[in-house]
Amino acid sequence: MKYINELRDGDNVRGVYLCKGKRVAQTRNGKPYDNLLIQDKSGTIDGKIWDPNSGGIADYDEKDFVEIVGEVISYNNNLQLNIRQLRVAKEGEYNPGDYMPTTEKSVDEMYDELLSFINRIENTYLKKALSFYFVEDAAFIQCFKNHSAAKTVHHGFAGGLLEHTLSVVKFCEYMIGAYPILNADLLYAAALFHDIGKIRELSAFPDNDYTDAGQLLGHIVIGVEMIDESIRHIEGFPVVLANELKHCVVAHHGELEYGSPKKPALAEALALNFADCTDAKMQTMTELLKDREDTGWIGYNRLFESNIRKTSE
Amino acid sequence: MKYINELRDGDNVRGVYLCKGKRVAQTRNGKPYDNLLIQDKSGTIDGKIWDPNSGGIADYDEKDFVEIVGEVISYNNNLQLNIRQLRVAKEGEYNPGDYMPTTEKSVDEMYDELLSFINRIENTYLKKALSFYFVEDAAFIQCFKNHSAAKTVHHGFAGGLLEHTLSVVKFCEYMIGAYPILNADLLYAAALFHDIGKIRELSAFPDNDYTDAGQLLGHIVIGVEMIDESIRHIEGFPVVLANELKHCVVAHHGELEYGSPKKPALAEALALNFADCTDAKMQTMTELLKDREDTGWIGYNRLFESNIRKTSE
Amino acid sequence: MKYINELRDGDNVRGVYLCKGKRVAQTRNGKPYDNLLIQDKSGTIDGKIWDPNSGGIADYDEKDFVEIVGEVISYNNNLQLNIRQLRVAKEGEYNPGDYMPTTEKSVDEMYDELLSFINRIENTYLKKALSFYFVEDAAFIQCFKNHSAAKTVHHGFAGGLLEHTLSVVKFCEYMIGAYPILNADLLYAAALFHDIGKIRELSAFPDNDYTDAGQLLGHIVIGVEMIDESIRHIEGFPVVLANELKHCVVAHHGELEYGSPKKPALAEALALNFADCTDAKMQTMTELLKDREDTGWIGYNRLFESNIRKTSE
Amino acid sequence: MKYINELRDGDNVRGVYLCKGKRVAQTRNGKPYDNLLIQDKSGTIDGKIWDPNSGGIADYDEKDFVEIVGEVISYNNNLQLNIRQLRVAKEGEYNPGDYMPTTEKSVDEMYDELLSFINRIENTYLKKALSFYFVEDAAFIQCFKNHSAAKTVHHGFAGGLLEHTLSVVKFCEYMIGAYPILNADLLYAAALFHDIGKIRELSAFPDNDYTDAGQLLGHIVIGVEMIDESIRHIEGFPVVLANELKHCVVAHHGELEYGSPKKPALAEALALNFADCTDAKMQTMTELLKDREDTGWIGYNRLFESNIRKTSE
Amino acid sequence: MKYINELRDGDNVRGVYLCKGKRVAQTRNGKPYDNLLIQDKSGTIDGKIWDPNSGGIADYDEKDFVEIVGEVISYNNNLQLNIRQLRVAKEGEYNPGDYMPTTEKSVDEMYDELLSFINRIENTYLKKALSFYFVEDAAFIQCFKNHSAAKTVHHGFAGGLLEHTLSVVKFCEYMIGAYPILNADLLYAAALFHDIGKIRELSAFPDNDYTDAGQLLGHIVIGVEMIDESIRHIEGFPVVLANELKHCVVAHHGELEYGSPKKPALAEALALNFADCTDAKMQTMTELLKDREDTGWIGYNRLFESNIRKTSE
Amino acid sequence: MKYINELRDGDNVRGVYLCKGKRVAQTRNGKPYDNLLIQDKSGTIDGKIWDPNSGGIADYDEKDFVEIVGEVISYNNNLQLNIRQLRVAKEGEYNPGDYMPTTEKSVDEMYDELLSFINRIENTYLKKALSFYFVEDAAFIQCFKNHSAAKTVHHGFAGGLLEHTLSVVKFCEYMIGAYPILNADLLYAAALFHDIGKIRELSAFPDNDYTDAGQLLGHIVIGVEMIDESIRHIEGFPVVLANELKHCVVAHHGELEYGSPKKPALAEALALNFADCTDAKMQTMTELLKDREDTGWIGYNRLFESNIRKTSE
Repeated sequence: MKYINELRDGDNVRGVYLCKGKRVAQTRNGKPYDNLLIQDKSGTIDGKIWDPNSGGIADYDEKDFVEIVGEVISYNNNLQLNIRQLRVAKEGEYNPGDYMPTTEKSVDEMYDELLSFINRIENTYLKKALSFYFVEDAAFIQCFKNHSAAKTVHHGFAGGLLEHTLSVVKFCEYMIGAYPILNADLLYAAALFHDIGKIRELSAFPDNDYTDAGQLLGHIVIGVEMIDESIRHIEGFPVVLANELKHCVVAHHGELEYGSPKKPALAEALALNFADCTDAKMQTMTELLKDREDTGWIGYNRLFESNIRKTSE
Repeated sequence: MKYINELRDGDNVRGVYLCKGKRVAQTRNGKPYDNLLIQDKSGTIDGKIWDPNSGGIADYDEKDFVEIVGEVISYNNNLQLNIRQLRVAKEGEYNPGDYMPTTEKSVDEMYDELLSFINRIENTYLKKALSFYFVEDAAFIQCFKNHSAAKTVHHGFAGGLLEHTLSVVKFCEYMIGAYPILNADLLYAAALFHDIGKIRELSAFPDNDYTDAGQLLGHIVIGVEMIDESIRHIEGFPVVLANELKHCVVAHHGELEYGSPKKPALAEALALNFADCTDAKMQTMTELLKDREDTGWIGYNRLFESNIRKTSE
Repeated sequence: MKYINELRDGDNVRGVYLCKGKRVAQTRNGKPYDNLLIQDKSGTIDGKIWDPNSGGIADYDEKDFVEIVGEVISYNNNLQLNIRQLRVAKEGEYNPGDYMPTTEKSVDEMYDELLSFINRIENTYLKKALSFYFVEDAAFIQCFKNHSAAKTVHHGFAGGLLEHTLSVVKFCEYMIGAYPILNADLLYAAALFHDIGKIRELSAFPDNDYTDAGQLLGHIVIGVEMIDESIRHIEGFPVVLANELKHCVVAHHGELEYGSPKKPALAEALALNFADCTDAKMQTMTELLKDREDTGWIGYNRLFESNIRKTSE
Repeated sequence: MKYINELRDGDNVRGVYLCKGKRVAQTRNGKPYDNLLIQDKSGTIDGKIWDPNSGGIADYDEKDFVEIVGEVISYNNNLQLNIRQLRVAKEGEYNPGDYMPTTEKSVDEMYDELLSFINRIENTYLKKALSFYFVEDAAFIQCFKNHSAAKTVHHGFAGGLLEHTLSVVKFCEYMIGAYPILNADLLYAAALFHDIGKIRELSAFPDNDYTDAGQLLGHIVIGVEMIDESIRHIEGFPVVLANELKHCVVAHHGELEYGSPKKPALAEALALNFADCTDAKMQTMTELLKDREDTGWIGYNRLFESNIRKTSE
Repeated sequence: MKYINELRDGDNVRGVYLCKGKRVAQTRNGKPYDNLLIQDKSGTIDGKIWDPNSGGIADYDEKDFVEIVGEVISYNNNLQLNIRQLRVAKEGEYNPGDYMPTTEKSVDEMYDELLSFINRIENTYLKKALSFYFVEDAAFIQCFKNHSAAKTVHHGFAGGLLEHTLSVVKFCEYMIGAYPILNADLLYAAALFHDIGKIRELSAFPDNDYTDAGQLLGHIVIGVEMIDESIRHIEGFPVVLANELKHCVVAHHGELEYGSPKKPALAEALALNFADCTDAKMQTMTELLKDREDTGWIGYNRLFESNIRKTSE
Repeated sequence: MKYINELRDGDNVRGVYLCKGKRVAQTRNGKPYDNLLIQDKSGTIDGKIWDPNSGGIADYDEKDFVEIVGEVISYNNNLQLNIRQLRVAKEGEYNPGDYMPTTEKSVDEMYDELLSFINRIENTYLKKALSFYFVEDAAFIQCFKNHSAAKTVHHGFAGGLLEHTLSVVKFCEYMIGAYPILNADLLYAAALFHDIGKIRELSAFPDNDYTDAGQLLGHIVIGVEMIDESIRHIEGFPVVLANELKHCVVAHHGELEYGSPKKPALAEALALNFADCTDAKMQTMTELLKDREDTGWIGYNRLFESNIRKTSE
């Protein structure tokens, strides 16, 4: 089987892919056909089943893994997969990990680096609170390593939550060096915890969509509850410290209209807000421009409220 | 001792009052004097100590209960208390309850009415969650009955939290009758719980000021944690129901910029938001106009972004 | 004839319907066809005329009542009506009332209830002003009973204006009981009058669209003119009372950016604003969720700025 | 009697002035004194009565015309009037017109120029509607000529409403020449009518303050009612034209948040909005800078959201 | 060759046109076809090549001038050009000027009028700065005369920059007469210079799109640099005057959120802002309504945030 | 002479200080006195001259260096200097550098570090443009080293511009390591140049106030002009690179409403915006909290829109 980013005009394809989307349409003559969004870890391609009632096309649904037989054509400068046969694949015929966009970095190395920051923390309460999840909770660790940090936008791939969290932690490391006012232990702990609520806000891959709890509460409130869960297991955790830690998480979006019910009131909350925001925006810019080869303007981007382009040289 | 709202020009005063505020000032000739804000449950009056170093004036501080000897004068249409003697009163010389603004309604009757709503709830999980605090937790009940709902603005008096909560619950009762879409049990529970976080956001009277937790987390996040605390003690509490209940509390300010990290996504959350907002605004208007006898314009009010006045007969 | 909400896949249809919309389209082969929006009181269905030049298809236009012969098919989970024959129906062949979405409540009962509120008003000036329209003006009464309260959004059906007005009045009744500051007569009168400008802002069914006056002036300014018209016929109507009544109508949208040229400056104006806003939002939520059977998320709603869903249970 | 702008340090003053403001104050020694704002048409000066209980000081109140005996001193680069004697003047002892800030232009010439624009209008309905007030209604004319256009801000002097209206009309004359799309008759009529509601929104001089109707309805709604009053007297006034005329007045503030319940939807409404806004801002700038002799920065101005200064030669 | 605005249903066409846009599409049967936007100075028309691989259709691209053979048909009330033959035209076969939307006024007369304003300026420094471009720089003059003032919106045609600039200058002439506070020389100079940055912000016709410098810097910053370029060549140009002139250009959008880094701080900057804004909006309205024959509502316009229509009469 | 931060209650003072502010006031008895703001590099103290007409008090003015004889008293918990004698000091009697707030870091070391970043730049055009100012222009270097970065807010002290610029450059160094998308040379050059316009926007110490050019143009536009000045001296400077560099400076405030006429459109512009904003906010927080010893709430801060406090530990 070929990865999607290796397909070329004229290729004949036989392989198992994830059917990420399915939409029934109709030609103007009243003839129905299917539009599919075919995905593997390397990318996505549009698929068409022009004759859905043909014998070769079995029943299938969105989010099924399907074996496909078809041909790649080039249409209006985009590749498209005309599908002649399709059947739902059985478990064992495929490795789910092959079908999700995934961080390009080593998950294990990133996780080790994350742990090294926990080890630097001197405050035993904060260290225990972090260990409760990041060291002792195997299910959490497994989930955290494979989670995305978003449904779309930036870091929307398996390992994205880990990659973003590490990036924010390292950003905080820089700021701790630059601004003596910052309490290193508190800021590291807050940075490590800041997005753990996403574990429950977004479902795991290949679904990667908002959960009911995510819609109703959001990852900030969920994150505070998770921190609270950890703190309850630690005898003598100072109340003021607990509130300061939660505050940093509560305020990390920086503005009420971005979903933080409180504005940053501590230097560490402010620093975390900048680290999170900067990493999110720089990563978004990276994802938007990474496959570009020229420095042409790519069109108005709503997040940046500007047309954008790669820099020359 | 006379209550402050009974004082008249020329009265000689001897009695214990709360020194709500103290500010040292200086005449232009360099002579220091003290500005006091004197309070009891009936209201406040400005006090002046023109000779703070006189023998009759003992050491005292803000928030002390002080015995005062002085005279009421009328100055520029306002009464003012010129204080000749002052000493800090001892516990036992006064009843703290006499010095806080307090609801004009019966706290016990209001609380009984609140309980009657809990009794109407059929869903056993929600009923148990409410009983955890409102029926079984004596310290909570004591505190809830005497708390204010705000530092200033509306319901900023002892019993104000109870009065506001009951008013919102009854508002919801009306809406449950008017809009069949509403789930009565969920809405009653959410209304009863919506401001419990204020117990920890604001300190008790006579202080009635933001606590550290209140500044850092706010009553919405604190309230969710308190609900969570209760739910953890109830076996089998349905996850979806828990999230719906918390959502209503999370979203009850209605807008992100008012401190709700989520906008109302359920009909009950929407209804609670309207009940809370309407009661707050109607009570504020009531407090602003209640002592007015005429229908003259009282000046621009920043909350209402308008000049306001009483309505003619 | 079957109502549209009774049609099922495979049904053969012959009957008169309202052609609410007509749009000519073209297949990619250059063959023209017609897209219709077919409506009766029970709902709407898409219609297609694949061969508009066929002998069975007579000339017709948008907003015509047309007799249709065709067949219901199910396409991509939606029903669709393939039309083989069509002709414009003559007056007498149909009852226009069968083709408009209409309140599910009894118009006469609602109107009687509305009148009962007028009868409660003790202030003779306000009572006369209301009677001028609601009791004495038969044409107004006829129109008011059958008008919608909106082009789309909430209460966009015949009787909707009446239903919404009554709902707001009853909301005010609750508030009058809850907030003693409110002047009952003024608030009832303002509530009854608040949307009468919609009589002239929106044309009658089946058109139900903005009139020229509606576009140029809006229902608030029109409403003030209509109240003014009534007041001019009442000798000795107190000027202050007239201004207070008009103010409540002027300010009932609550914010300048929602089209009220003044913010509420009286308690009654504030109360009316809340009653109107709450009823509008609760009704919108009801209309969005009423045909849902599950509690799945229905997608982002722009009015509520949130994804929404039905509550569990 | 000397006009206020002629007073100099050391002058002895005896004359009748308007007491525009009165505020009782107290020295730090507890000695009361009075702060006055003394006004005549040429300007204002601060007054002090250091001994209000002296025999020479009779009872008086804000907005009284008072005969004053005192001395001008220079204090911190500002003149100040120390008042030794004061009594309320009787009618006949003064000419009210001498005590209001007044346009520097000829009221009669401006009014004649205004009438010349009415004479240019060819549409008989619009001409009649204007004549109803500007030609036939002597009381209106008298009032319009002497009214201000604002409580403070721009054109806040007698004749200011006339001066502003004429200026806007002439601005429209320019635009009619520049933009052929404009209907001259409609735009002239709308410009002449655009602020007539101010006649009832603001009380006459020397009070010049918001009336009850002004607070409750504002000059836009009042203006529409006044136009409506005129139109009712003109048989056959075309409905569409009436709505267009009212629309221009309704929309002349340009934005909902500036108090227009509708945004400009006609070219004439747009033009009127620009003419009004430009004249208001240019006049405000003129009033702010007119007495400046140098080009120094005069400090942050909230209306212009900028520090401002005169331009160099 | 016929101009596009003269084409009628059934016409056979042979002539050279500008291919303003080209988009490849596909019928539902998988058959590709081309959508073209055909333009000449009189307007645009949609073109279709149903058989792009036919022998008569040569290679071509967007922005080519192409000779077309085809037939006009009427489809859904719009004309459409079905193209049977197409080839790229050679230079010399067409006059580029025939293919751009162009001002309807005389460019030379407008330019002469512009120069007459420069001649009125008495301040020699300002006059020299203007002459540097408008009198002495032939390339600039050529470019300025043929440039548009916008990519779309108002004045988006050849000569549009000149037409808009002249219109703003004349608007300023009116204001100089009306508001004595204005320094005529400074305002004329600022008005003449205010949009010269558009010369480099937008590329010339037929491209008329944002340049790289336009995207990165915008016409305000570019305009300041161009003025600076001119001033450097004039010995003794007073620094204060230079800053005032640049300020007027910097602030001419009036609001930071419209791209002016400074709000108007001088009367002339304010006047220029109004003149520019008013002319832009009046011209936009003119362009929107100019081809309308009736007074029907044309639908919601995003710039005006309102539905708009022509005025009656 | 003692530095201001060493003064204690009861100290007798004789020494030269900067009179940063002077305001004439009046006791309620009509007796004038002077309020002074006395400054040296260590801080400020309020001064009072209770008898300005005494023989010991010579003429003086704001921004004079004055020799003072007086006594320190403690008043309402603040120190105050009662001045008995005052005369303007002559040049030579004081060292101006002793009277300005100054960076606590070594200016020369910071400048050397700044130069080391210039040396890292490989692009010869960017390196030359930077050298034009930072290496070759002695007057610029002198000025840059001693300038503040603000009138008030953050880095409002001599050396502040250098300290802030270096901090931003180092922040960019971190980001260049973290985000491979960034062009190091461009980002370093932009960071070094980003605030050079402040050299001309703010006057030098001890004045440190907005200049005329600063008010009219602002440091962004001035900065672009200064970069342009440098680039003009460098043959062959690539146009695209020049525009990219200027863009980064133009967009470094990040939002139009913060005074950037363009939003960041390049990754480097985005990074610079974050570095600048983060450093400004972290430094402001540092300055607000640096002298605090406890973790009490210090009150609502308008910049942060929140009450703030030091973190515990």
